[in-house]
Amino acid sequence: MKQIEGNTTRPRPRVVIVGAGFAGLNATQALRKANVDVLIIDRNNYHKFQPLLYQVATSGLEPEDIAHNARDLFRDYGNISFRLGTVKAIDADQRRLHLHSGDAVTYDYLILAAGAVTNYFGIDGVQEYGFPLKNLPDAIDLRNHILRQFEQADRANGTGPEGALTFVIVGGGPTGVEMAGALVELFDIMQKDYRNVDTTQANVVLLEMAPHLLPPYPESLRTYTRTVLEKRNVDVRTETTVEKVTKGAVHLKSGETIPTQTLIWAAGIRGNPIAETMSEDLEKGYRLGTKPDLSVPGYSDVFVAGDMAGHKDDNGDLLPQVAQVAIQQGAHAARQILRRIKNQPTEAFHYKDLGQMATIGRNAAVVEFPGGMKLKGFFAWFMWAFVHIWKLVGFRNRLDVFISWIHNYFTYDRSARLILDMVPISDEIPHDVEYVNQRVKERMEELEKG
Amino acid sequence: MKQIEGNTTRPRPRVVIVGAGFAGLNATQALRKANVDVLIIDRNNYHKFQPLLYQVATSGLEPEDIAHNARDLFRDYGNISFRLGTVKAIDADQRRLHLHSGDAVTYDYLILAAGAVTNYFGIDGVQEYGFPLKNLPDAIDLRNHILRQFEQADRANGTGPEGALTFVIVGGGPTGVEMAGALVELFDIMQKDYRNVDTTQANVVLLEMAPHLLPPYPESLRTYTRTVLEKRNVDVRTETTVEKVTKGAVHLKSGETIPTQTLIWAAGIRGNPIAETMSEDLEKGYRLGTKPDLSVPGYSDVFVAGDMAGHKDDNGDLLPQVAQVAIQQGAHAARQILRRIKNQPTEAFHYKDLGQMATIGRNAAVVEFPGGMKLKGFFAWFMWAFVHIWKLVGFRNRLDVFISWIHNYFTYDRSARLILDMVPISDEIPHDVEYVNQRVKERMEELEKG
Repeated sequence: MKQIEGNTTRPRPRVVIVGAGFAGLNATQALRKANVDVLIIDRNNYHKFQPLLYQVATSGLEPEDIAHNARDLFRDYGNISFRLGTVKAIDADQRRLHLHSGDAVTYDYLILAAGAVTNYFGIDGVQEYGFPLKNLPDAIDLRNHILRQFEQADRANGTGPEGALTFVIVGGGPTGVEMAGALVELFDIMQKDYRNVDTTQANVVLLEMAPHLLPPYPESLRTYTRTVLEKRNVDVRTETTVEKVTKGAVHLKSGETIPTQTLIWAAGIRGNPIAETMSEDLEKGYRLGTKPDLSVPGYSDVFVAGDMAGHKDDNGDLLPQVAQVAIQQGAHAARQILRRIKNQPTEAFHYKDLGQMATIGRNAAVVEFPGGMKLKGFFAWFMWAFVHIWKLVGFRNRLDVFISWIHNYFTYDRSARLILDMVPISDEIPHDVEYVNQRVKERMEELEKG
Repeated sequence: MKQIEGNTTRPRPRVVIVGAGFAGLNATQALRKANVDVLIIDRNNYHKFQPLLYQVATSGLEPEDIAHNARDLFRDYGNISFRLGTVKAIDADQRRLHLHSGDAVTYDYLILAAGAVTNYFGIDGVQEYGFPLKNLPDAIDLRNHILRQFEQADRANGTGPEGALTFVIVGGGPTGVEMAGALVELFDIMQKDYRNVDTTQANVVLLEMAPHLLPPYPESLRTYTRTVLEKRNVDVRTETTVEKVTKGAVHLKSGETIPTQTLIWAAGIRGNPIAETMSEDLEKGYRLGTKPDLSVPGYSDVFVAGDMAGHKDDNGDLLPQVAQVAIQQGAHAARQILRRIKNQPTEAFHYKDLGQMATIGRNAAVVEFPGGMKLKGFFAWFMWAFVHIWKLVGFRNRLDVFISWIHNYFTYDRSARLILDMVPISDEIPHDVEYVNQRVKERMEELEKG
C-alpha cells in the first residue's frame, strides 16, 4: 500500500485548507511548489464555479459544465492531497479539525476557506418552502422544480395551482438579478415546448429590501439594470420586505400576499457555521474577524480567506463576499504561511479592486472598472461572457460552456432541461435527516401529481 | 389560452402512446404527418438512450449526453403532444388510461411501449441492497456510490469496509459485460486520483447463471468476450447463482459469500407492470402477448411494441428485448393504426434482424451481422462507437458524446466524475415512499462517514 505523505525523510509542515472554492484553490496554487504538505478538505469532490450556478437552475448549463473534479485538479502535485469530508469543529488550541465522520485531522497551518451558507435570517417558512441556490444539488433541484411547474400548468390547460407560474426571487444582488434575467428568457423557450401554456402569464417577481437593485453598483448601472429587467417583464419591487413564507405564498410586511409555488432565496449569505466553533465574537454576517495579515486573532497559524473572512479594509469596512476577494485572499494566506515558515514577518492584505460585473441576460450586462469607468449593454455582456469562460477551471469546462452558450445564443434554445427525479440529501446544514425527509415528501407529492 | 387539439374542425382519431423510448419514438415518427392526433405519455420528460446508461454509471458520459428532452423532439409537429405522467392502469374496455395523478386519458388507438423494469426474481435483499441500472437517476446514484467507495478507501488508507472495492455484477448479458469492461477501465483512472488506494486491489466479479456470457451470441464471440474480460482482470464466474443479498455481501447458491458494498443487478428485466392491469395471461417475462399484427388479443385498437411486447417469431420464440426490435415494432404498430383508420387489413410484424453488437471496453467489441458474419476486436469496437453515435437522437447529443469519447480515449481519462449528494425519488415501482426513505437513510449514512 502506498503512503500518504510521500517519501520525504524529515517531516514537512502540514498545511490544511478547508474548502475547495475560489479561496482554497488559489491557496493551493501558491503552495504547490513549496516545501510543505498540503491537505485540502471539501464536502464535495469538486470545485464549483459559483457565479454560474443560476444558469444550471435555469437549464442554460449542465452541472458538470461549472464543476471540476477536485482530485483531477491536484493529482499532478505530489505535495497536495484531497480529502472528501465535512468539517464539524475547529480545535485551534490543539491544532486539530473534527470531521462529521468522527475523524480528526491535525495541522501545522490552517487556511479556513469554507465559504458561506444561505442566510434565512430566521424568517418563518423560508428554509422549509424556499429554494436556496448555493450548491449544485440546489441548482438541479430548482431546475427540476421550475420545469415541473410548466408541466403542471400544461396538464391543467394553462392554469395549474395558484401561482404555479409565479416565480418569486428574494434578493436584488447579482444572484437575484441574474436569476431573474435568466428566468424570463427561459419563458420564451418554454412557450415553444408548452403549447397549452400561455407563458406570457408566467411572471418573475424580484423583491429587494433596499431602495435599489445591485446596491454596490453606481447609480447609472443600477437604474439601467432595473430598466432592462422591467422591459423584460420582471416585476421589480424594491423597499419590499418578506414577513413570512407559507406553502404556496409569500407574505410581505406590507400585508400583501403573493401566491407562488416557487420562492428562490437569494437574499443573503452568512459565514460557514464552523466559524462559530472557533470564536464567539464574529463580525457582521457571522464572518471570522482577521488581523491585517488574514490570520485569526490569537491563532497566528490559522488564516481565513474568502466569504468566511471578516476582513476590514483601511476604512474599517468589511470587504464584499465576491470571487475576486476570495481569490486574492486565498493566495495571500498561503504566502503568509510560507513567510512564517521562513521566519519572515507577515504582510497585511490589501484588496486590489478589479471592478465588478453582472449580467442581466441576453446582450445586457453592467461592468464597473476600477477607477469608476462604467460599461453597460451589449459590450458589457460580451465582456462578461468572455471573462466567465476565461475564469472557469479546466479546458473541458471552458469548451462545454462555450459550446452551450453559442448554442443557446443562436438557437434561442436551452440544453437538455431534464427533470431528474432526485432529491438533494445534503445541505448547508449537513446531515439534517428530518429536513431531508421533508424535502423528499414534498418532491414525491409533486411526482404524484404526474 | 391556446387549445390542446389544434384547430381542426372535425375530430381526428386520437392515438395515445405510452412510453417515449425507442418504440414510442419510432411510432411518433410514423404518425407525425398522418391525420391523427397523437399524445405520447412518459414518466420522464426525456427520451433516454438506454444502451449507454452504463457509461453514465462509470463516469464516461454525463446524464444529458444520453437523454433528449421529449418536448423538444415533438414541438415541430402540430399533431403530437407530450404529457409527463405515469400510467397506473389500462381500462381497454373503456378505451381509457388511468394515471397515478388520478387523471384519466382516453384514446381511440393505443400503443403500449412502456418498456421493462428490473426483474429482481424475488431474490432476498436484491432490491434493498442492489443497484439497478434502468433509469437515469439509477445511473447517477450508482456513479455517486462507486466514487464514494474510492473516497472511503482513500480515507482508510486503502482499506475501507470489507469488500469496499469489490464490485459484483450479476448478469452476463450485454449490460453486465459492458458494465464490467467499463469498471475495470475506471480503476486505472482512479489510480491517478487516489494515491492512497492500490486500485489493483479493486476487482470486478461478473456472475452469470448460464454457462456462457452473452448467451445469444455465437460461440467464438462469447469465448472472445470472456477471454478479453479475464485478461482485463474481471473475475468471470458462469454457472453461478445468487441465493440472497445482505448488507455488505452476496451469498451464492454454492454456499460461498462475496463481501461487497456494491451489487449491480443486470440479471434481467420484466415487462412494465401496467401489462398486468390489462391481461392476467402474460407471456414469459410478464410480456403482453400479441397477435401477428402486434395488437393485443381481444383489443384490436391496442398495440404493443418493444420490451413490453411478447411477440413470437415464426418459430414460436419470443423476440429478444433489444433496441432494434423496439424500433421496428414501434413503427409497425403505428402503421397498422393508420391502416385500420383507412379500413385496410393489418399486416403481420416480421422482425428484420440487423445483427447485434456489444462492447467490452477500449478497442474491444463483438459484432454479429445478419447472416452470421462475425467481427471482433478493434474494428468491431470502432463500428460499435460509430453506430452508437449515429443512433443517438439529436445533434447536441451526438456532438457531446463524440467529444467525450475522443477525450476519454486519448487522455485515458473520464469526465467530471462528480459525486452529487442526491437520491433517486422515483423508481420502477413509482411512488413507493418507504423504499425511497430507506434509500435516503442509506445514502445519508454513507455521507455521515465523510
